[in-house]
Amino acid sequence: MRRWELTLTLDPAHPQPLFLQLARAITDAIRRGRLKPGEALPGTRELAGLLGVNRNTVVAGYAELAAEGLVQTRVGGGTFVATQAPAPRPPAGAGERAPTYELAPPLPLPAPPPAPAPGALAICNGMPDARLFPAQALARAFRRALGQRQRNALDAPDACGHPRLRAELAAMLARTRGLPVTPGNLMVTRSIEQAIDLVARTLLRPGDVVVIEALGYPPAWRVLELAGARLLPLPLDRDGLDVGALEALLPQQRIRAVFLTPHHQFPTTVVMSAARRARLGRLAVTHGFAIIEDDYDHEFHYDGKPVLPIAAGPERANVVYVGSLSNLLAPGLSTAFVTAPASVFPRLASLRAASDARGDAAMECAVAELFEDGELLRHVRRMRRTYAARRDALAGALRTHLGGALSFHLPEGGMGLWASVDHAIDLDAWCAAGAREGVQLFGAGRYDFHRRTQPCLRLGFGYLDEAELAEAVRRMARALATLRPAASRTRRPAAMRDAIAAP
Amino acid sequence: MRRWELTLTLDPAHPQPLFLQLARAITDAIRRGRLKPGEALPGTRELAGLLGVNRNTVVAGYAELAAEGLVQTRVGGGTFVATQAPAPRPPAGAGERAPTYELAPPLPLPAPPPAPAPGALAICNGMPDARLFPAQALARAFRRALGQRQRNALDAPDACGHPRLRAELAAMLARTRGLPVTPGNLMVTRSIEQAIDLVARTLLRPGDVVVIEALGYPPAWRVLELAGARLLPLPLDRDGLDVGALEALLPQQRIRAVFLTPHHQFPTTVVMSAARRARLGRLAVTHGFAIIEDDYDHEFHYDGKPVLPIAAGPERANVVYVGSLSNLLAPGLSTAFVTAPASVFPRLASLRAASDARGDAAMECAVAELFEDGELLRHVRRMRRTYAARRDALAGALRTHLGGALSFHLPEGGMGLWASVDHAIDLDAWCAAGAREGVQLFGAGRYDFHRRTQPCLRLGFGYLDEAELAEAVRRMARALATLRPAASRTRRPAAMRDAIAAP
Repeated sequence: MRRWELTLTLDPAHPQPLFLQLARAITDAIRRGRLKPGEALPGTRELAGLLGVNRNTVVAGYAELAAEGLVQTRVGGGTFVATQAPAPRPPAGAGERAPTYELAPPLPLPAPPPAPAPGALAICNGMPDARLFPAQALARAFRRALGQRQRNALDAPDACGHPRLRAELAAMLARTRGLPVTPGNLMVTRSIEQAIDLVARTLLRPGDVVVIEALGYPPAWRVLELAGARLLPLPLDRDGLDVGALEALLPQQRIRAVFLTPHHQFPTTVVMSAARRARLGRLAVTHGFAIIEDDYDHEFHYDGKPVLPIAAGPERANVVYVGSLSNLLAPGLSTAFVTAPASVFPRLASLRAASDARGDAAMECAVAELFEDGELLRHVRRMRRTYAARRDALAGALRTHLGGALSFHLPEGGMGLWASVDHAIDLDAWCAAGAREGVQLFGAGRYDFHRRTQPCLRLGFGYLDEAELAEAVRRMARALATLRPAASRTRRPAAMRDAIAAP
Repeated sequence: MRRWELTLTLDPAHPQPLFLQLARAITDAIRRGRLKPGEALPGTRELAGLLGVNRNTVVAGYAELAAEGLVQTRVGGGTFVATQAPAPRPPAGAGERAPTYELAPPLPLPAPPPAPAPGALAICNGMPDARLFPAQALARAFRRALGQRQRNALDAPDACGHPRLRAELAAMLARTRGLPVTPGNLMVTRSIEQAIDLVARTLLRPGDVVVIEALGYPPAWRVLELAGARLLPLPLDRDGLDVGALEALLPQQRIRAVFLTPHHQFPTTVVMSAARRARLGRLAVTHGFAIIEDDYDHEFHYDGKPVLPIAAGPERANVVYVGSLSNLLAPGLSTAFVTAPASVFPRLASLRAASDARGDAAMECAVAELFEDGELLRHVRRMRRTYAARRDALAGALRTHLGGALSFHLPEGGMGLWASVDHAIDLDAWCAAGAREGVQLFGAGRYDFHRRTQPCLRLGFGYLDEAELAEAVRRMARALATLRPAASRTRRPAAMRDAIAAP
């Protein structure tokens, strides 16, 4: 099998998933006779090692080949080129016939950021660190939840979530965020996108105008657009969304809803002031628009006390509140949620019951157990300390190595730091140089509604540990130095900085 | 605490969930001073026993009270009436202010069937038996999946499902159902309703006409209506949907899609003939409508070989195929799926990526493990034997005890048996008498699009074991006998049967 090492190359930047690239390459080799019927393919672990990919990629590639009848897996292990032609498939050719009904083209989705090259440190990644999830505790709780299962508990799950989890979540949200929430107006959702989708389908009609923050979270915008919203971005400042600009707009523009992230604004991390929250709430009541408050990472607040959500304030009548615990537990766990006033909630609940009738009762009970035995709150406290330390480590490294190139305020919370890049630096060139030095960076233009270039970086401090963050910043500095040797590690006077990107 | 035994009663038939009823009753007792500050409430296990409810109900009720600040839980266990007034809540009254924007009323959803009375046998329940789920194997696989987690595996889950599970599912569907499916055109969904919701939002525009079976699964109809479909029910016969009636309609009526359950038609259990499937597929291609094929319980086929899905036949170009493994594993597990031709699939995938971007990667890997180590297929074989035996036990008991009252064909598969009730029997009265005798029955009108009374029962044989099924049928017979003493256990000539409900 030596020859595989030489001829099988995969391209992570190619739009086709790696496992399909692998399957196609092996298919070619079989068709060209370079792999003979009955010949063994390398073990999945071995091939993954040779190619420098995750083993699951190889497993999925082999499975794709097996589904096409090109390879066979033998009992006792091993994958072999099929000894006979693929089993007779459904009549040949018919599968490729296009449907005869009309269909809109796929939705335009922004391309996901490219996967980092092997070994590169993804300091652009704003996700939490999956290595820190309470995996063992969750697995134990899941086993207990399934083991104690009784017909009543798992049989006919409530579409709004298992009562145990709703009760725990409601108690936590009332206690720590001051929200007027009980299990009766709280729904557990599969993801925060599902929560926003339900809210959008409930509140919006095609053509409705929804105000958003001009810098924000594009996946949430896509969900609003699915419901037919016309998005209207308004500027941000150090206190969050510019509510004055919104107020000036109201006499001439009918607004149906405002979608925002007031707590740690995404991506800029600014905290909306209490005064501005109250003003926005009052405007909503007066002008009859809804506020969709996305509080996606409320727990991760490090300095002082979090400002109360708009949904907890006196002018909350028009607020629908969505959030998630997935940054705390594991991506994709059914731990996002939505709460709304008693007159709105039944509309959301009936839509959920119609469109996705059963929650994952066993997993919801497992998460409820983590609440009940205190594990979840202990984990929150641990993570808060860990991520605060990482934030400080990142900030320190940036000041040391890139103090002249970047300026930033220390964020009060969240998983990312928002840094302005000295205007003399060619940010695109820096990102490209970073890729060569083993650090993944990209400009903040991807968070801008109009995709305009922004002289800013959002640097994640959740995904990497303190040593990795320090190394990533060193690589950033090395990359910057390659642009102009002089533009190196220490603070330089403005005149020198301006020289960095001079032609 | 003796007095609780006497005064706290819960009503399962009341629309308010039991846990809220419990919380409200305790709130009343606290407000009236019958429970004093600091007084201990009964343990959750004890109170559950006293009230004859699931312990989770009590846990949820106590949590509701804790959320409202009325009770406190102490370290070391025990729940006590709060010793001080509830903590200051967000400004009083504001929570009850109604939003000032307009909102459509909640969607009209059919009321779920009432919960069976304690001790009653729910022979109307068409669900699988949660006691048989491979809980331990799944819990072990989940622990392994979380334990082996690597950044690549769980970090940025694909909205279409984890490649490992997609590969296993695709291989299984290709092998056992002849479907032209690869991981590239297969999506794992959270539930079959989510799969139908994605298909409906992709294929339908408001006002489009969708043909359905006149007897069917109302939750699926609700999902189609969410996308704006106008539903047009067509009759069924012993070969499934009346395709002749559809063909007659096509010249005068534009049809956008046909939604059907051809395998074990729900609720009648009839299998659509291969000839009729082919004819429907051809009509779809010729007339440019889509077929949404719901194959929700393909595995549970007991006699002979299943007919291949329409999506596996030569005229499959217009078919989108949805299915689920949740009857096999546990309700709510992320094991439903949808597959579509290569030209349609990207539209579904982009909608999923926008509306619910992350699957539950850890759970998907756990289910993939059950496939990989053969546990899932062994479980399928075990369940097929178990449910076939239950079907035969139910059929035998019905022939013995109710042969004169019911007539039915033995279903080839599924979890239910469709029985015609002798027209002389007052079915509503029989159902009411059943409730008194401890067996839950309801007429098949709830499966009729127009909610017309149907002289039919759908009896589930998956939910109850053989002894429970036998007892349930004895109770049905006793209930029937209470209507007319003569109408008792053995086959009676038609003249006698007709006399049963005579005035």
